[in-house]
Amino acid sequence: MLITPGKLLAQINSPDDLKKLDQAQLVQLSDELRHFIIDNVSVYGGHFGASLGVVELTVALHYVFNAPYDQLVWDVGHQAYGHKILTGRRDEFHTNRVYKGLSGFPRRHESPYDAFGVGHSSTSVSAALGMAVASKYKGEDRQHIAVIGDGALTGGIAFEGMNHAGVSDSNILIILNDNCMAIDPNVGALKDYLTDITTSRAYNKLKDEVWNLLGKLSNFGKSAQEIASKVETGIKSTLLSQSNFFESLNLRYFGPVDGHDVNHLVNIFEDLKNIKGPKILHCVTVKGKGYAPAEKGNATTWHAPGTFDKITGEIFKKIQDVPQPPKYQDVFGHTLVELARANDKIVGITPAMPSGSSMNIMMKEMPDRAFDVGIAEQHAVTFSAGLATQGLIPFCNIYSSFMQRAYDQVIHDVCIQNLPVNFCLDRAGFAGADGATHHGAYDLSFFRCLPNMIVSAPMNEEELRDLLYTAQLPRAEQAFSIRYPRGQGVMPEWRTAMKAITIGTGRILREGHDLAILSIGHVGNYAAEVCDALAEQNIRIGHYDMRFVKPLDEALLHAIFARYKKVLTIEDGCLPGGFGSAILEFMADHHYNAEVRRLGIPDKVVEHGEQSELHHECGFDVAGIERAVAEMLELVSR
Amino acid sequence: MLITPGKLLAQINSPDDLKKLDQAQLVQLSDELRHFIIDNVSVYGGHFGASLGVVELTVALHYVFNAPYDQLVWDVGHQAYGHKILTGRRDEFHTNRVYKGLSGFPRRHESPYDAFGVGHSSTSVSAALGMAVASKYKGEDRQHIAVIGDGALTGGIAFEGMNHAGVSDSNILIILNDNCMAIDPNVGALKDYLTDITTSRAYNKLKDEVWNLLGKLSNFGKSAQEIASKVETGIKSTLLSQSNFFESLNLRYFGPVDGHDVNHLVNIFEDLKNIKGPKILHCVTVKGKGYAPAEKGNATTWHAPGTFDKITGEIFKKIQDVPQPPKYQDVFGHTLVELARANDKIVGITPAMPSGSSMNIMMKEMPDRAFDVGIAEQHAVTFSAGLATQGLIPFCNIYSSFMQRAYDQVIHDVCIQNLPVNFCLDRAGFAGADGATHHGAYDLSFFRCLPNMIVSAPMNEEELRDLLYTAQLPRAEQAFSIRYPRGQGVMPEWRTAMKAITIGTGRILREGHDLAILSIGHVGNYAAEVCDALAEQNIRIGHYDMRFVKPLDEALLHAIFARYKKVLTIEDGCLPGGFGSAILEFMADHHYNAEVRRLGIPDKVVEHGEQSELHHECGFDVAGIERAVAEMLELVSR
Repeated sequence: MLITPGKLLAQINSPDDLKKLDQAQLVQLSDELRHFIIDNVSVYGGHFGASLGVVELTVALHYVFNAPYDQLVWDVGHQAYGHKILTGRRDEFHTNRVYKGLSGFPRRHESPYDAFGVGHSSTSVSAALGMAVASKYKGEDRQHIAVIGDGALTGGIAFEGMNHAGVSDSNILIILNDNCMAIDPNVGALKDYLTDITTSRAYNKLKDEVWNLLGKLSNFGKSAQEIASKVETGIKSTLLSQSNFFESLNLRYFGPVDGHDVNHLVNIFEDLKNIKGPKILHCVTVKGKGYAPAEKGNATTWHAPGTFDKITGEIFKKIQDVPQPPKYQDVFGHTLVELARANDKIVGITPAMPSGSSMNIMMKEMPDRAFDVGIAEQHAVTFSAGLATQGLIPFCNIYSSFMQRAYDQVIHDVCIQNLPVNFCLDRAGFAGADGATHHGAYDLSFFRCLPNMIVSAPMNEEELRDLLYTAQLPRAEQAFSIRYPRGQGVMPEWRTAMKAITIGTGRILREGHDLAILSIGHVGNYAAEVCDALAEQNIRIGHYDMRFVKPLDEALLHAIFARYKKVLTIEDGCLPGGFGSAILEFMADHHYNAEVRRLGIPDKVVEHGEQSELHHECGFDVAGIERAVAEMLELVSR
Repeated sequence: MLITPGKLLAQINSPDDLKKLDQAQLVQLSDELRHFIIDNVSVYGGHFGASLGVVELTVALHYVFNAPYDQLVWDVGHQAYGHKILTGRRDEFHTNRVYKGLSGFPRRHESPYDAFGVGHSSTSVSAALGMAVASKYKGEDRQHIAVIGDGALTGGIAFEGMNHAGVSDSNILIILNDNCMAIDPNVGALKDYLTDITTSRAYNKLKDEVWNLLGKLSNFGKSAQEIASKVETGIKSTLLSQSNFFESLNLRYFGPVDGHDVNHLVNIFEDLKNIKGPKILHCVTVKGKGYAPAEKGNATTWHAPGTFDKITGEIFKKIQDVPQPPKYQDVFGHTLVELARANDKIVGITPAMPSGSSMNIMMKEMPDRAFDVGIAEQHAVTFSAGLATQGLIPFCNIYSSFMQRAYDQVIHDVCIQNLPVNFCLDRAGFAGADGATHHGAYDLSFFRCLPNMIVSAPMNEEELRDLLYTAQLPRAEQAFSIRYPRGQGVMPEWRTAMKAITIGTGRILREGHDLAILSIGHVGNYAAEVCDALAEQNIRIGHYDMRFVKPLDEALLHAIFARYKKVLTIEDGCLPGGFGSAILEFMADHHYNAEVRRLGIPDKVVEHGEQSELHHECGFDVAGIERAVAEMLELVSR
């Protein structure tokens, strides 16, 4: 079902078409753009609230600035739907986030209007500054604009970028899209500060009042005038230049302004175009703006609601006849609370993903023991290390791809210090529709090479629970990582009694002949399916759920290599340096020869799609494993 | 030679002893501590300026606070010499930075007074906050103190930590040690801001003046009083709570104060002890304070000067009879400028290591093309990515262990976008005396697993020059990393004519029988020495300088595995997932069988020492390689 755009929107095939409109028509265009997004997302799903919140900003930016010559970087990028629709992608927008379709985020390869690829937060200032400095060096008179949310502003790299921008003398405009939200409500001191500026307007009020005062003082004779003059000097140099967080960083601060007044925005942008140097415009917006259920409802729910009835605002849920396995996320969230009830040393940490990780379950029940630290993965890890030094048992839950941002902290603050911090890596393997930036493809490799790091992955809900249970038991002082995928497991009856797993031991699922499958994590279920099917043909191969990539179960591996001459490894992680590579290292170190084939994520950037589509593409879904087994057993030719 | 401490210092075996002194004696103790540090470092070397700058701060902190119950986190930690000397390590301080001796940085395993291990910058706020939150949860009444420099404050994690601290309601005192320096002079907007506060004292002056004004206004009758009252409310809520960068983050701000007035510091700390909640004390200090050559001379030189004549301030240089090979750092710095003169697209980026990396050579000659972005590795990488989008050719030089801090940016902003950014990884392999936190042990593994990443390492100066030359030629859109160690190469005549190397090709150094050594990088020189020695005994083994870990030279490897049944791989990187592992993957993928032994950094935390000592410890110095070869050739028993 193609969504029909409104009359004006139907004419906009590029920002050039937009510029042909009369400014008075922009309100209507904004309205049409908003409805086009609502219509699309209600039918096809996707990110919702963020893009609705910047409709007017998007229209005004493309009306005033001259993209792609002027360069526009959307931080995170899930608010860029309007941008995509206005820059020539309206008619393919229904393929958004679909396999082989448009990306849900700006991507350089998708359009020249996407000046910088995004997905993770807080990068826009640095990227736009790089562009601005390059333009200055090349003598080009371009505008460089970074649109960043107040949530993304808490990420350290955004601060690093602003600290450099403030002394760069380059032409960069930072637009602070302040809606008090990350995916969950934004947290932290800066958020309170921004809210203070906006709600009390104390900052502007003070400026006005001091100026008024200075004016009135001149009525009180010479002595007062002298005071006034003296104070004015001090105020000008200090209050105006230093009284604001951003001005401390030498960014000229403008605002706050209403981010939903498209005409006012157009006028402001026209002015700002002519003000050179680094500057920031503080725009106040409402996530979900213009769609009542989203505006009035839970902003987190409406961040990416799935499909919904646009009239009633009812979010569609799949109705299932049979009990479904839970999401791994929910198993984590509920199990952590179960454990924390019994063990008062357990604390939970999430960097801005309370609902995504299900840490919100613990935050609700034990608010003094579960911390949302904002979009701040580096801090989350070192903060966890600090908690661990005091004998607490931190469970720090970070999506696999976001863990990349705290890699040094894992090494420097946790592993080198032998601190027993538990890392729960959510969204390991393919993230699905979020695509390349969000896939958790590398963690097995980048954690496996670290000393004092235990690397594990459960094959199902029961193993996840057992690993969580194990991670909170007293142990040698090491970090413990548990990685699991986005989405459903395989056990509708998942509230199993928890038991300890001996660290570094795998599980024999099936003994066989000729060939052994060694799997790690949830993809072991695909392998089990293949083994079942083969068993029905009386072909009995071995299957071992290794559970730990580090330390490896050496006893089990010795038994396996004594028994089999062909081994197939399966992981939903990158092949270089990953689980299969660990098996090869074991073999070399112990002088085993065997034919080893490794299935996993190949050495390329894999784009978005359903997890099953991506598993298929990479050849480690059921069909891919079947094929690999058949080839290795020479049942089919290679 | 043991250094004799002064009379007071000789009595201080723990902070308890310090507390027995009369406050009036602290000036003398500070003096003695300063001289003890000067005496030690002049003879034994080590970090210098930073510790001299915090002598009074250190004495005052340990006089007032109750470590180790109160917890003290030194950011970066090279300023912690005084702390070590006062906390029971005076008599072993001469072993500082020596193999098996004291670490140059606080280490949890070394002393209970070292509340948190450091080495990399900007972690102290997060760590201390973790401790403070744990104390609060456990109902303990402790003090938690983070001492952080203005340089370290530019690292994003410090901002993330402060943003959380400001809303944490926990008992944390941040001491800003403001000396306007990182190792090189500090940069960025915040540094200017701090200098403004300090030098003009505008902030305090304004507060005073406004308060004075409000007082005087009451002389002007009722109308003026009303204005005064109204403005006072506005000012109290805004000026005081928001007028300062730190107060924007809800940290109570005190200062600036003179960080060399030990008695004043004691009094301030006594006051601050009783003020609960998150707060920051801005201390102004001078790096190298109290040693005239360091105070007046170049602060960067005196950061870690090596040994020197403490009377004259003359820094000792080794006098060599024969021409010495240059440092890889200098080869990098000079070669980059040579290339940049011929190719105007080349730009250079360093995060706060202009002198350490020798990027200062380009910064001096081409100030508009070489950027010190401050301690901000994440920003450095994304900024480089932004530059690359505009067709420039960035050479982003980051120490291997600091690259860990920008890992996500390498993946998310460079590799996933296929941007041709060049990464020069200095201090790859063992950093030497800086120890565990600074070893570049993991980069081969954590870069090798990334798509669109070329991973290379030169064996000598000529190869470094050729790789740098190659990296600036037009190529497929991929990142290019070149890693090299700290210190000297092997070619006194290093200014070779540069030539392109075909990406992914190795070099045959020596063909032989039975066994092939495959080496990557500088440690290949050890292997060459072993091969030479064996050749004199008429044992001819092969030696291949692979140059690229990724892409591997597959043609060469096919030839090698056709010829040899025994292969020894050598790398100065961690074994899990590293270069040797890549060779095993190639073998498995192409069905080769061979006995492979891998030498490299084992899977443990290696402490500090001379590079040669650490190479020996890990078994890949000449002796270790000799032994491994002999064992593989069965010349000796294993």
